[in-house]
Amino acid sequence: MSNFDILRDDVKDLWDKYIRHEFVIKMKEGTLPLDSFKYYMIQDTKYVNIMLKSLLNASSKAPLNKITNILNAIFNTRDKGLEIEKEILEKLNIDDAAIENTGYNLVNYAYTRHLYYNSTIGWDYFLASWAPCMIGYSFVGKFVKGSPNEIYDLWASFYGSKDYENRVETIIDALDDIKLNDGIKNVFRNSVNFEIMFWEAALRKDPTIFK
Amino acid sequence: MSNFDILRDDVKDLWDKYIRHEFVIKMKEGTLPLDSFKYYMIQDTKYVNIMLKSLLNASSKAPLNKITNILNAIFNTRDKGLEIEKEILEKLNIDDAAIENTGYNLVNYAYTRHLYYNSTIGWDYFLASWAPCMIGYSFVGKFVKGSPNEIYDLWASFYGSKDYENRVETIIDALDDIKLNDGIKNVFRNSVNFEIMFWEAALRKDPTIFK
Repeated sequence: MSNFDILRDDVKDLWDKYIRHEFVIKMKEGTLPLDSFKYYMIQDTKYVNIMLKSLLNASSKAPLNKITNILNAIFNTRDKGLEIEKEILEKLNIDDAAIENTGYNLVNYAYTRHLYYNSTIGWDYFLASWAPCMIGYSFVGKFVKGSPNEIYDLWASFYGSKDYENRVETIIDALDDIKLNDGIKNVFRNSVNFEIMFWEAALRKDPTIFK
Repeated sequence: MSNFDILRDDVKDLWDKYIRHEFVIKMKEGTLPLDSFKYYMIQDTKYVNIMLKSLLNASSKAPLNKITNILNAIFNTRDKGLEIEKEILEKLNIDDAAIENTGYNLVNYAYTRHLYYNSTIGWDYFLASWAPCMIGYSFVGKFVKGSPNEIYDLWASFYGSKDYENRVETIIDALDDIKLNDGIKNVFRNSVNFEIMFWEAALRKDPTIFK
């Protein structure tokens, strides 16, 4: 059993709620209102910035072979991911100013600062806090692929791709190198909760008051 | 006009909402249910731990004369503060295990990680994120003092004290040394919003799912 399996089984109900959330099912069925997705995309873009900052901050604390595998898998295919993201943002009429001028909602603010906080504690804590986002989106992408809504299908074409799966494999492999304890499990659980709340905040369109 | 005055005036309505929140008024009038205060005290104790960790992390980045004034004012009177806190926790039957076993609510988790995040950016950012809590509680303490509820009056006897005011003066003085910009103002505003939401989360007794 991999460490990822242990961590996921520890929060099984939450994990299922995360990867099969109402938001996700509506993307797959094509019934998610486009303004909910637009709200989500702006929050997600802001999220990715701090997520990457946290990854870089934690990088130097990681075993060198593991982190180079991860960074290689990410940056090898980042152009492709950015290209799809750009295409989606254009279709939704979201420009850089819209992303810059929109604040974080409370959940996104908490989640991103949680990632950064854990990146200061150690590679193991960061990795466990980061894994739910990276790994979960692979499940979500594969599920949403084939959506009758072309934007959701395009979105899923990246997260459901083999390239993205390669990223996930490097993360699952790195997870197997760390020693699990209650602190690590809590951090993983917090992130799964944040992922659930991230979808919910998008469905509710929570106020975006945090700059 | 001090930098603190500028920062506060920039968020005047929010500031007033913070220091004269329903939670605060009910403390003063003695009508705040004790279980709301108990919930608040547990969250606050958890908050203070990460707040101090953030302060210590930011300390080495601060001008030495300013930070030694601040630490001197805090640690000179910390025993007295802890003594009052201990008395209140005992009256409320809150032991260390209760604090340890209770998680953070979302607002508290976001607020504490926000403080720590800013402590990694720089002394100016940390100071602006920290000031609303430290300075606001002086106003709140003076206002609540004299509450017919002996626990709330005891609580206010610390935050409304001259000793506490001395702490605040060192912080207002240190604030005058930093250069204000939009980033600093945003950080200050975020913290004032967190303070308001902190009272509200206690009134609602938000779930405490974050470990």
